[in-house]
Amino acid sequence: MPVKKSIYLDNSATTPIDPRVLKEMLPYLKENFGNASSLHYAGLDNRVAVDRAQAKLAKFLNGDKEEVYFTSGATESDNMAIFGPIRALQRRYPGKKWHIIISQIEHDAVLAAGKEMEKEGVEVTYLPVNSRGLVEIEALQDAIKNNTVLISIMYVNNEVGTIQPIAEIGKLISEINKKRKSGRDSLRGKDDLQKIYFHTDATQALAYYPCDVQKLAVDLLSLSGHKIYGPKGVGAIYIKNGTPFLPIIFGGHQQNNIRPGTYNVAGIVGLGQAVELLSDQKAREKENKKIRELRDYLVKMIMRIPHLAVNGDTRKRAPNNASFIIEGVEGESALLMLSEKGIAVSTGSACSSGSLEPSHVLLAMGIKPELAHGSLRVTLGRFNKKSDVDVFIKELPPIVAKLRKMSPIKIKV
Amino acid sequence: MPVKKSIYLDNSATTPIDPRVLKEMLPYLKENFGNASSLHYAGLDNRVAVDRAQAKLAKFLNGDKEEVYFTSGATESDNMAIFGPIRALQRRYPGKKWHIIISQIEHDAVLAAGKEMEKEGVEVTYLPVNSRGLVEIEALQDAIKNNTVLISIMYVNNEVGTIQPIAEIGKLISEINKKRKSGRDSLRGKDDLQKIYFHTDATQALAYYPCDVQKLAVDLLSLSGHKIYGPKGVGAIYIKNGTPFLPIIFGGHQQNNIRPGTYNVAGIVGLGQAVELLSDQKAREKENKKIRELRDYLVKMIMRIPHLAVNGDTRKRAPNNASFIIEGVEGESALLMLSEKGIAVSTGSACSSGSLEPSHVLLAMGIKPELAHGSLRVTLGRFNKKSDVDVFIKELPPIVAKLRKMSPIKIKV
Repeated sequence: MPVKKSIYLDNSATTPIDPRVLKEMLPYLKENFGNASSLHYAGLDNRVAVDRAQAKLAKFLNGDKEEVYFTSGATESDNMAIFGPIRALQRRYPGKKWHIIISQIEHDAVLAAGKEMEKEGVEVTYLPVNSRGLVEIEALQDAIKNNTVLISIMYVNNEVGTIQPIAEIGKLISEINKKRKSGRDSLRGKDDLQKIYFHTDATQALAYYPCDVQKLAVDLLSLSGHKIYGPKGVGAIYIKNGTPFLPIIFGGHQQNNIRPGTYNVAGIVGLGQAVELLSDQKAREKENKKIRELRDYLVKMIMRIPHLAVNGDTRKRAPNNASFIIEGVEGESALLMLSEKGIAVSTGSACSSGSLEPSHVLLAMGIKPELAHGSLRVTLGRFNKKSDVDVFIKELPPIVAKLRKMSPIKIKV
Repeated sequence: MPVKKSIYLDNSATTPIDPRVLKEMLPYLKENFGNASSLHYAGLDNRVAVDRAQAKLAKFLNGDKEEVYFTSGATESDNMAIFGPIRALQRRYPGKKWHIIISQIEHDAVLAAGKEMEKEGVEVTYLPVNSRGLVEIEALQDAIKNNTVLISIMYVNNEVGTIQPIAEIGKLISEINKKRKSGRDSLRGKDDLQKIYFHTDATQALAYYPCDVQKLAVDLLSLSGHKIYGPKGVGAIYIKNGTPFLPIIFGGHQQNNIRPGTYNVAGIVGLGQAVELLSDQKAREKENKKIRELRDYLVKMIMRIPHLAVNGDTRKRAPNNASFIIEGVEGESALLMLSEKGIAVSTGSACSSGSLEPSHVLLAMGIKPELAHGSLRVTLGRFNKKSDVDVFIKELPPIVAKLRKMSPIKIKV
């Protein structure tokens, strides 16, 4: 297949596989094809590779190796994080009514798992965010009830790139857990009845920020390979030792029965290598700086287009994200016209593509539905160059002008 | 990494990726890296690839394209097949007590899902098999109750290779469903209360037999990539239109909400290509014949070892499988000594490796636990040659002699 000459500015939807990652994967797609559970040499080779990847993730996350489980991706990890603790507690304490808190700007995987939990009898609070796309600590504190047992707040939002105060929330929850423990002697010995477990979906954060589970004080953390220059179809979940957990998939004895199924060795090796590349702090800072400068340049240039507004907090956001609304323009039309020029961007989340609903993230930020339809998300990555941005900022204005001309809603420019 | 000179005789644990499969996958690990849900050109390329793979599977299975869903592998597919219909019915008819039937020789994924269903209040019958490792139609018929709603019987057993009478069972179930429908006017309009849904795990069958869901009369069918010369970490499930189904993973809108999550495009393309290679009926017959002849030769030669018996029906079995018990020998010891010689075989299922329990399949066939520990499974595949078998039959007898000499249980030879 010929290499397409293209300008890929949709790195939050998925990233290309870093050639250094693919290089590590290839032997496991070729000669090292054994089943990592097999006891013979062809299995052990692969078992060692899985162990090594697990250790890389554990090191990056500052957790134990045994706390890292491989999954098929962040959607599965998110589902595990929500269902796992709640269903374990439901089984242990039948009839007890639990409460969980999920932010309104979570990924569909967390939101849909929350909706499913509601159908299974769990009370769910969908926590609002402020107009800058940030969870407010006070609002979260007010939402916590006596029977709150799980809080799930994403680290970096996939649509607008805003960074949530995970460490602060972690600290708050730890303090509440301490108070609960000391104040409720009657429940002594049933710690999991008192504790609030804290999950963060770090899928979009991993590429840019340290994800130290101790510093963040999280019990569960989800991540994915294909957002960090690794392969699709593989992800992981960190589950802190002692967290009550009922699997969502049952089977053989792989991964301590938490997530059975034949190890996707090539995928796991790729994920491990992708994480190892992120562990080089110096390289990462350099990369972040480059991406941030490109993004800032892009934003500065497109701000020349009248009636264009950036979504979300301008400081507390991932360095790669430029999400904005162009009044009088359908985001999807702009996306398609840019695509014809070989430029790939998105309107919001790839997972929601094709849905006619406006973005739930933008709505949660108080943006009106008719404006939310005008959103575009440009997300830069490791392999973007200034020339990519230059093409984008050259091609966008005429497209906007054309679409505004066609639009029934007239914008005064 | 250097290519290991090895004799791989463990193809039921996993198969190498066929180079023709890897060739199709590589573009999706390199330049065609888009998210198949993205609306721009980089996404559409991938969406087309996913669609094409889905069509290949549908054609092979003789189902509709919309009835094929991609998963992370057979373990997930099996879990979906068991949980999906039952949980959907539980939600639709709260409080109703359901009954399911699972054979005792199912893969751990089905058995463990069954155990979980029991904990969720479902009655489960674990159907025995005869001494040849076959489900008997009469026994199945006797086990069916008024509230039986799901039957799960694997097509080809992973340990002993026996072929279950899936089409016959399918016919029986269809007849029962017809009778139920006509005889119960009071339930008209609630067909799913009357119907028995039929699932088969075809993971080990796909490489050797047609899996026509119409001819087999199955409602659900599981399969995996890495048992058919495709990649690990990808599988599929066929779900017949109209089957009640509650997903086990929730999230974005991919795959009609039945199995959301970013498409593992390279894996899906690989699975599609692996299935397409199996669709060449002539090539497959030739391959089956070659494998069968090699297997028969292997069995004939090892039968010269005294006190060695082949497990399972000798005719109704997959062409690649030779499973046998060597009295007075620990299978695991033999496996490790063969491994030192560069020969890869297994004792039973790779998924149960490391478990000290004797094989549940052999126990279900009435083989005593002390004998079951002496089992070895040799499974041939597409890339084996006669010379591989020759090395194995040369190396095995001295290993058996050595182990018998060391064994506390003395065998008269």
